[in-house]
Amino acid sequence: MTDRKEFRDLVPPEEAHEAIASLSLSSGAEEVSLREARGRVLAERVDAALDVPGFDRASMDGYAVRARDTFGVDEADPAVLDLAGAVHAGEEPDVYVEAGTCAEISTGAVMPEGADAVVMVERTDERAERGSADGSSGETARRVEVRTSLAPGDHVMLAGADVAAGERALGPGTRLTSREIGLLSALGIDSVPVRAKPRVGIVSTGDELVRPGEEVESERGQIYDVNSYTIATAVEEAGGEAVLYPHAGDDYDEMERVLVEAAAECDLVLSSGSTSASAVDVIYRVIEERGDLLLHGVAIKPGKPMLVGEFPDSAYVGLPGYPVSALMIFRHFVAPAIRRAAGLPEPRTATVDAEMAVEERYGEGRTRLMPVGLVESAGKGALAYPVDKGSGATTSLVEADGIVEVGPDTAYLGAGEPVSVTLFSPEVRPPTVFGVGEDDPLLSSVLDGLDRPRYLAIGSRQGLRRLDRGVPDFAAVSGPIEREADAVELGGWTREWGLVVGSGNPRGIEGLADLVDRDRRFVNRPTDSGLRTTLSAAIADLAESHGESRRDLEERIDGFELAARAHESPARKVASGKADAGLGLRATAEKLELDFVSLGEERVTVLANPNRLEKRGVEALREAIENAPAELPGFER
Amino acid sequence: MTDRKEFRDLVPPEEAHEAIASLSLSSGAEEVSLREARGRVLAERVDAALDVPGFDRASMDGYAVRARDTFGVDEADPAVLDLAGAVHAGEEPDVYVEAGTCAEISTGAVMPEGADAVVMVERTDERAERGSADGSSGETARRVEVRTSLAPGDHVMLAGADVAAGERALGPGTRLTSREIGLLSALGIDSVPVRAKPRVGIVSTGDELVRPGEEVESERGQIYDVNSYTIATAVEEAGGEAVLYPHAGDDYDEMERVLVEAAAECDLVLSSGSTSASAVDVIYRVIEERGDLLLHGVAIKPGKPMLVGEFPDSAYVGLPGYPVSALMIFRHFVAPAIRRAAGLPEPRTATVDAEMAVEERYGEGRTRLMPVGLVESAGKGALAYPVDKGSGATTSLVEADGIVEVGPDTAYLGAGEPVSVTLFSPEVRPPTVFGVGEDDPLLSSVLDGLDRPRYLAIGSRQGLRRLDRGVPDFAAVSGPIEREADAVELGGWTREWGLVVGSGNPRGIEGLADLVDRDRRFVNRPTDSGLRTTLSAAIADLAESHGESRRDLEERIDGFELAARAHESPARKVASGKADAGLGLRATAEKLELDFVSLGEERVTVLANPNRLEKRGVEALREAIENAPAELPGFER
Repeated sequence: MTDRKEFRDLVPPEEAHEAIASLSLSSGAEEVSLREARGRVLAERVDAALDVPGFDRASMDGYAVRARDTFGVDEADPAVLDLAGAVHAGEEPDVYVEAGTCAEISTGAVMPEGADAVVMVERTDERAERGSADGSSGETARRVEVRTSLAPGDHVMLAGADVAAGERALGPGTRLTSREIGLLSALGIDSVPVRAKPRVGIVSTGDELVRPGEEVESERGQIYDVNSYTIATAVEEAGGEAVLYPHAGDDYDEMERVLVEAAAECDLVLSSGSTSASAVDVIYRVIEERGDLLLHGVAIKPGKPMLVGEFPDSAYVGLPGYPVSALMIFRHFVAPAIRRAAGLPEPRTATVDAEMAVEERYGEGRTRLMPVGLVESAGKGALAYPVDKGSGATTSLVEADGIVEVGPDTAYLGAGEPVSVTLFSPEVRPPTVFGVGEDDPLLSSVLDGLDRPRYLAIGSRQGLRRLDRGVPDFAAVSGPIEREADAVELGGWTREWGLVVGSGNPRGIEGLADLVDRDRRFVNRPTDSGLRTTLSAAIADLAESHGESRRDLEERIDGFELAARAHESPARKVASGKADAGLGLRATAEKLELDFVSLGEERVTVLANPNRLEKRGVEALREAIENAPAELPGFER
Repeated sequence: MTDRKEFRDLVPPEEAHEAIASLSLSSGAEEVSLREARGRVLAERVDAALDVPGFDRASMDGYAVRARDTFGVDEADPAVLDLAGAVHAGEEPDVYVEAGTCAEISTGAVMPEGADAVVMVERTDERAERGSADGSSGETARRVEVRTSLAPGDHVMLAGADVAAGERALGPGTRLTSREIGLLSALGIDSVPVRAKPRVGIVSTGDELVRPGEEVESERGQIYDVNSYTIATAVEEAGGEAVLYPHAGDDYDEMERVLVEAAAECDLVLSSGSTSASAVDVIYRVIEERGDLLLHGVAIKPGKPMLVGEFPDSAYVGLPGYPVSALMIFRHFVAPAIRRAAGLPEPRTATVDAEMAVEERYGEGRTRLMPVGLVESAGKGALAYPVDKGSGATTSLVEADGIVEVGPDTAYLGAGEPVSVTLFSPEVRPPTVFGVGEDDPLLSSVLDGLDRPRYLAIGSRQGLRRLDRGVPDFAAVSGPIEREADAVELGGWTREWGLVVGSGNPRGIEGLADLVDRDRRFVNRPTDSGLRTTLSAAIADLAESHGESRRDLEERIDGFELAARAHESPARKVASGKADAGLGLRATAEKLELDFVSLGEERVTVLANPNRLEKRGVEALREAIENAPAELPGFER
C-alpha cells in the first residue's frame, strides 16, 4: 500500500481544457444519404449544379399570356384571348402562345413559348363562342376574358430564380436541419459529404463491474457498470459515435490490450470505472509506456483524478470512476472537444438565476461544479439546493437540474445568496413540484399523474425537518409525528402495516411477540422512517402490557437495528431468504407474493409548505390526492 | 376549369390548432434497449427493483475499522490496530473485523463484517512489528496506526443509500438523457418501456416530382421533390418516425390507393406536393369518401390551402405544396401534435428582439408567418429583413433565421419598428456577416473560411442598392459602377471574363463580333449582374468603332435578352448544347471543361457598410480577402 498515487500537483482547470484542445479528435469526412443527414455537418461547400427551377415556371393556376396583350385592360374593359391549348405540371408544352392567344396553365407547369406572364384564374372568365376573336372563322372557339393587366414575369418564377447553377448553396460547417435538406432536395442531391463523427472508445475498468441486464452478485461486491452506457450516451449527445469495449480488470496486460485496441480503432479513448489507486496506477503505466501522459490531476471537484494523454493514433482522457464525477468531467472538459471535432457549435446554455436555499461551505481551494436542484418558491423566484448524496450516488444525476460553478476562492455561500445555475441542457425543465419524506406506493401513483414532480424518499422525520427549513413544497409523513410543523395538510390516507413474511409463513410468525427471543431474523426500516416510528410505538405498547421496557424488547429482536432504506427492501430481503420477517406494508407483501401479518394501520399525511399553496404544482398535487383511487391492497382514504 | 376549389371560408389559426389537437396520433409503447433509449420518453414509471449499492460499500481506499476503536484518537495519540486482512472491489470479504483490528479495503469493496467505518489511507501508517498489539505473540505482525477518530458510517455508503428497492426511480413521461440512463444502468435495467414514436406517412403528390438522385427532365417541367425529405426530416426533428410513400399522381384511384395504404400503416398521414387545384380536389374527394374532412383553408399566410381530416385509423393533414409553406405549416400546426404524441415537451423557443430593416405591408387580413433573416447592426442591435423569394423558392428556407408572426389586423410594419423574431430553433445562430451582390467563385472560397457567413447573389446593381439602404454588412460588385456609394472598400481582385464556348469552339467564335447577325445562340446574364454591365461597355466600344449604336448591336445578338441568373448558368447552357456561347469567366469554362474566348478583365470589389467596420464578421472578412490566394484560373489580386 506504499505505491499509491496521490494527486498532489493539481493543475488548474484551464490547463486541462488546453491539454484536451491540443489533442486531435477529428476523423475526416464521409458521404451520407440525404435521409441520414439530419443533424450532420457539411464537410465541404455545396454549390448548385443546376438551376432551380430548371425552367420558367407558372406559380399560379390560370392562363399563360403575352403581357403586352393585357396592357391597359381592367374589369370594365377586359382583353379577350383565344385559348390555344393547355399545359399541365410535368408536361412538355405543345402549344405556342401567339399574340392574341393564351394557354391554360397549372401551377408548376412549364411556361409555353411566346408567353411571358400568367393571369390568375380568378381574374378571368372562360367561354365558348362562335367565331374567333378576330372574326376570321365561324366555328365554336374557346375564349378567355382577362380582366387585369399584367407585367412580363407576373406569376412566373424564372429558371434559376430560386437558386442558379454555380451559386454557393451551403457553406462548409453548415448543420443540416429540415431547412437545408429542403434546399439540397431541390438541387437533386441525394448524398452529401459530412464531417465524420469522432469515434470514441469507452473502456470501463474494475473487476467489480457487471453490464446492466446481467446478474449482479452483491455479496461479492459486484455493481452494475454505470459509466459505460452513461458516457456512451453523453458521447452521442455531443455528436460523437460511442464504441463500448469489454471491461478491463486492474491487470496490466489486460488493461494494455484493451486500451491499445481501442486507441487503434478510435479517435479518442475514454477510460473510467475504477477509482482505486491501484487501477489508476496501472492505467498510468500503460499510457506512459504506449503513449504520452500530458497531465494528471485537475484542481476541480468533482473530478480531481482526471488524466489526459495520447496514444500514437488516438487521444486519451481518463475520467474519474464515480458516475457523477465522470459525467460532470465529461460534460465540462471532453464534450466541447467532441463537438468541435464534429463541427457542432457549443449548445446554447440555459441559465436560471436562483438563490441558495441553504448555506454551503467549501474548503479545498478547488473549483467546484456543484450540482443543484431547483424549486420555484412563490414570490422569491427559484431556490437552488445542493444535491450531494456522495460521489458514488447515481441518483444525484437525476435529482439535480444544473450546476453552480463555485470558484476556488469561495469558501462559503450563505442561504439566500444569488447564484447562476447552468441547466444541464436548455431542455431541462425544473420540477413543477418538489417533495420529500416517507416512501409510499400510493404516493408514487399520485406523482405519476403530475407533470414533472420530484420526490426524495428521505423518510418522514428528515422530510419534516426539510419542510420546516422551507426548501421543498411538500412533505409526506407517516406514523406518530412528534412535533408541530408549520404546514398545511393537503390530504392523506391510511395504509395497513405489519410484518412481511415468507410465502406460507414458514416460521409461523403471528405477531410482534414472535420476534422476541425467537431466533427470527428481522429487517427494520431506518429511524427516519415513519413506519419505524409506528413500529416502535407498537413495541412500546407490547412492552407495557408485559411490564417491560421498550428498549429491552427491541434489543431482544434479532435484526431490530438492521435497517433497509426503502419500503420494499425488508420484504425483498425476506423474499430472497435473507430474513424471516420484514417491516412493511400489505401492498408490498402482495406485490411480491409474500405473506403478511397485519399489525395495524397508520396514516400518511401530505403536508404543504404554507408559502407554496398557490403554486400550480402544489394545487395539482392536492387535486391528484383528492382524485387518487386508493386501489392498493391495505390502503384506505 | 369550372370545378376548381377555392378557399373562401378560411378558419382562424386557432381552429386549425384545435382540429389537429382533436386527432389521436399516439401509438402506444414499445420496449427499447438502454443503448437505444437516448431521447426517448418513459411510458411507465420505473421503480427500483434492487438496492444501490447492493451492499455496504467503502467509498475510500483505506482501512475498514470499528469506529469505536478510534474514539478520541488524534495525530498525537493514534490508535494502533492489527491488520486482519484485505478486501478488494469485486471480492467477497473473507475477514471479520474484531475489536482492535482492521482490514485493508479498496474503494468500492464490500465492508467486512464487524467493521462500520473506513479510515482514509492518508490518515494512517502501516508498519510491520514484532508482537501483536496486545502483546500476546512474538511473531512479526502488520499494524496500522490510525491518526483520526471516526464515527460509524464514515466513508461507507450503506446498501440502498443511493436508491433503495421499491423506490420510485423515474416517473412516466421522463425524457431519457445520459443522466437518466446512468440511473437505469445502476439499477441493472437494460431495456425500458418508452412511448412509441408516432408513425407519420408522407405522400407527395404531383406528376412532375422526381426524387433527388434521379434524373430530372426540366423541359417536361419536372422538378425535384423537396417536400418528401424536408417534411420527413422535420417529422424526425419533432420526435416522429417518417415513412415515405411513392408519389401519387393526380388520378383519383392512385391517390386513394396511396392515402389508404398510408393511413392503414401510420398514425398520421401528411400529403403535400401538388398545389394545383385539381389535385387538391382529388384529395378532397378521397378524404371525404374514405374518412372525414374536418376543415380546409386556414386564415394564415403562407399555408391557406391546409386540410385537416381523419381516416378510420389515422389522422390526416394536407400541407400546402410549396416547400416553404409546407414546412412552416408543419412546424406551426403539426409538429406540436407529434411532440405531444411522442411525449416530448415543446422545445424552448429562442427569440431575438430586432428592428425591422425595411418596411413591409400586408393586405390580406390573415395571420402572417413572415420568415426573416437577421443581421447584427453595430449599436442598433439586430435588424430583421423579410425573406421572400416567392413561395416556390427553397432557398428562403435557409436564408431566413426565424419567423415574425404578424397579426391579421396589422397592415404595415415600418422600418425601425421593433419585432420579436422566433428563431427556427434555439440552435440557430444568425450569420456573423451578411453580404449581397455579384456572384463570384473566389468570393465563394473566401466565404468558406468564415464562420457562418450569409451571401445572397442578387447581382452588383441590386447589391449596391441594398447596401445603400443599410441592411447588409457588405456588397460585392463588379463592372463599371455608375454611382458613388457610401461604402468602404475591404479589398478586391480582378477576374478574366469573356465567352464560354463549346469544347473545341465548334462554332468558331473569336470575339463579340462573331455573335452579331451570325446565328450564334448566346446566353447573357441578367441586367443586375456586374458582368453584364461590363459586357455592355465592351459592346458599346465595338459599336463605336463600327459607327453603330450599342442598342442596335445588342438587338442583333441572338439571345442577348436571354439572361441566366448565376455565373455558371450560361456556361452550363453551352455545355448542354442549348447555346453556342455564354457570358462567363475563364474559371467557369475551365471548371466545366469548356473553351473560353477572353474579352478582358473586370475588377470585383468588396464594399462594406461604413457603420459595420468594427463588426467582427466584417473584420474577419477583410482578413480573409487579404489572405485569400487567387488560385482560380483568370483571377488576380
